[in-house]
Amino acid sequence: MDLTKEALELHAKNKGKIEVISKVPLKDAKDLSLAYTPGVAEPCKKIKENPDLIYEYTAKGRMIAVVTDGSAVLGLGNIGAAAGMPVMEGKAVLFKNFGGVDAFPICLATQDVDEIVETVKRIAPTFGGINLEDISAPRCFEVEKRLKQELDIPVFHDDQHGTAVVVLAAAINALKIVNKDIKDVKVVISGAGAAGVAITKLLLSAGVADVIVCDSKGVIYRGRENLNESKQELANVTNKENIKGTIADSLKGSDIFVGVSGPGTVTKEMIEKMGKDAIVFALANPVPEIYPDEAKAAGAKVIGTGRSDFPNQINNVLAFPGIFRGALEVRASDINEEMKIAAAHAIASLISPDELSPDYCIPGAFDKRVAANVAYEVAKAAMNSKVARVEIDAEKLKELMLK
Amino acid sequence: MDLTKEALELHAKNKGKIEVISKVPLKDAKDLSLAYTPGVAEPCKKIKENPDLIYEYTAKGRMIAVVTDGSAVLGLGNIGAAAGMPVMEGKAVLFKNFGGVDAFPICLATQDVDEIVETVKRIAPTFGGINLEDISAPRCFEVEKRLKQELDIPVFHDDQHGTAVVVLAAAINALKIVNKDIKDVKVVISGAGAAGVAITKLLLSAGVADVIVCDSKGVIYRGRENLNESKQELANVTNKENIKGTIADSLKGSDIFVGVSGPGTVTKEMIEKMGKDAIVFALANPVPEIYPDEAKAAGAKVIGTGRSDFPNQINNVLAFPGIFRGALEVRASDINEEMKIAAAHAIASLISPDELSPDYCIPGAFDKRVAANVAYEVAKAAMNSKVARVEIDAEKLKELMLK
Repeated sequence: MDLTKEALELHAKNKGKIEVISKVPLKDAKDLSLAYTPGVAEPCKKIKENPDLIYEYTAKGRMIAVVTDGSAVLGLGNIGAAAGMPVMEGKAVLFKNFGGVDAFPICLATQDVDEIVETVKRIAPTFGGINLEDISAPRCFEVEKRLKQELDIPVFHDDQHGTAVVVLAAAINALKIVNKDIKDVKVVISGAGAAGVAITKLLLSAGVADVIVCDSKGVIYRGRENLNESKQELANVTNKENIKGTIADSLKGSDIFVGVSGPGTVTKEMIEKMGKDAIVFALANPVPEIYPDEAKAAGAKVIGTGRSDFPNQINNVLAFPGIFRGALEVRASDINEEMKIAAAHAIASLISPDELSPDYCIPGAFDKRVAANVAYEVAKAAMNSKVARVEIDAEKLKELMLK
Repeated sequence: MDLTKEALELHAKNKGKIEVISKVPLKDAKDLSLAYTPGVAEPCKKIKENPDLIYEYTAKGRMIAVVTDGSAVLGLGNIGAAAGMPVMEGKAVLFKNFGGVDAFPICLATQDVDEIVETVKRIAPTFGGINLEDISAPRCFEVEKRLKQELDIPVFHDDQHGTAVVVLAAAINALKIVNKDIKDVKVVISGAGAAGVAITKLLLSAGVADVIVCDSKGVIYRGRENLNESKQELANVTNKENIKGTIADSLKGSDIFVGVSGPGTVTKEMIEKMGKDAIVFALANPVPEIYPDEAKAAGAKVIGTGRSDFPNQINNVLAFPGIFRGALEVRASDINEEMKIAAAHAIASLISPDELSPDYCIPGAFDKRVAANVAYEVAKAAMNSKVARVEIDAEKLKELMLK
């Protein structure tokens, strides 16, 4: 049976993928009197007295919302929030399976930035964190920025930062393989959408020497006409020499290519012009910007894609479950740069120098150590960067997750 | 250990009462490719083509939101939505346990009617139905009315209609015990809040001859000054003889007393003045309007309370799980009067004439037949009253639920 048919059957057989179940017994009147009236009045009164106790007596502290407006669902585009529901349920299932985080899909019947922000703020009391999903750029930037400012729980747009964290993790290890220092490398990114912007910012935070971002019109540079706000911001912090021209021009002599655009944006010839031991992360899905065999033939040394059927899959699932688990465990008020960089190192460090190879620079999606190590490092980074509201024993959290 | 302490420990031990789990396996790359990318794109595309398929491929069709603004939580009053979270989780647990309905708490950081309506509409794509909970009167009436008009999924304020359905069920059986016809009886209701208004309307729909509603100022009658909109509406449809005076005046010669107010609103002396074989449902919790032994001493024949430690517990849990299950199974666009009356009869009919007694006029909360029979009758009533969007074999649903 082909995948298409099998996927439809799986979804139809189970009527979706998530279920809300009880963590407490409910078999007799006694159980009922504890879980519901009259016993339930007690935790309510305690929370009323001390709002922080909501983390003690309810599921809030391990519950996140997976929020979408359906404007940029996978590669399907603006299909609307209802049609995006299978993806949001899928994401919820990944959160639970990989991070032990309870996640619930919130599909919004609006694509207006003000309304999205307003709605998420109004439903926030139920949740310990907000994962934004499949909201198109540039609206996603404003939605995230405003929610981060206005809510005291972590807000994280996974299409941006999840991708950025895993790209950074893969880059850290790939650079070890080719013996280059992150502070010396030049990176070219194809795609200035949600992922491209976030990857750029995180690589710069992590110390990359220079990043050049290209969109469909070529290199983004200071002075280019009609740049929207987020591209203007990119122009200000990237492209040190302010070069102009095409992606081919920018790739000459560069060290890392990151494709978050679409098939056909780079060619074998362009990869050939990159520097020695080039690193190519061609992440468009399902058809990458360039296939691994072609990139290899063009001289690339380490190649990653978004697909599970090639080596080095750059998969967000390595990041978001552990990041949220770590953030939630310390009741972080934010997921900041320190936590994201810690997450990238947590992923990269799981492959020892002996194991590292051009075909193995990033752990596999089912490597159980990943989420545990990410949660551990993210919790520590949150505590160190003062966004944690409780201190925990991060070692114990890791042990618990590894069980 | 006392109940208070035990309830707190239960809530703390589990960090709340609900959990979101996966209904699909996720143990290898194949599973991942079906539940998430690339397979998940297929159900998305199908739903985009035909929006109705969201019921086929997602959890929407069995998922409801338990929505509160925290303005009238149990008897605790306006404690806010966050402090109400334990109750909403408890409700979710009851939905699942008794009706097999997935329910998720949405605690709103607003108590503004327009904002509540707007927010629920925006998050509606995820849900197959909306259960409003613990929203104070008279705002709850407008919230429900507007949401019923503007959404195509069932909206049900349980504090109103769940209570009303179970009171009607108990009344149907109690009247059999005292050999009176519902069309001949006069009912006095103490309390003109959410429950009082809904009980009044449903009893009138079910054919009760006359209802008189009393609030803290006494009998509600046409011409009384300063009646708010919902009480004005009550005045228009109740109190046929338009009597004035106190609750004591209204109770003289009446057949049924329903208390949804608070302790102390009726006395033994008032009950003594009721008609022969009076029926007393004193539902204030935890302290009823009058205790059963007192009511009995005053001549009442059938007595019910909201408590599990006296006979005849009038408990909403007999109604809401089955009502929503039935409504969801047929994708009802509404929960209408016909469905509510069907639910009441479904509950009442489970006690055979032989079994009926003054101490047993309503099934117990853990009688497994209840939700199954309610879902069955509600689904049939929805199909008969043309609000069902799919036809189902109601008999099969009942069998499935009884398993």
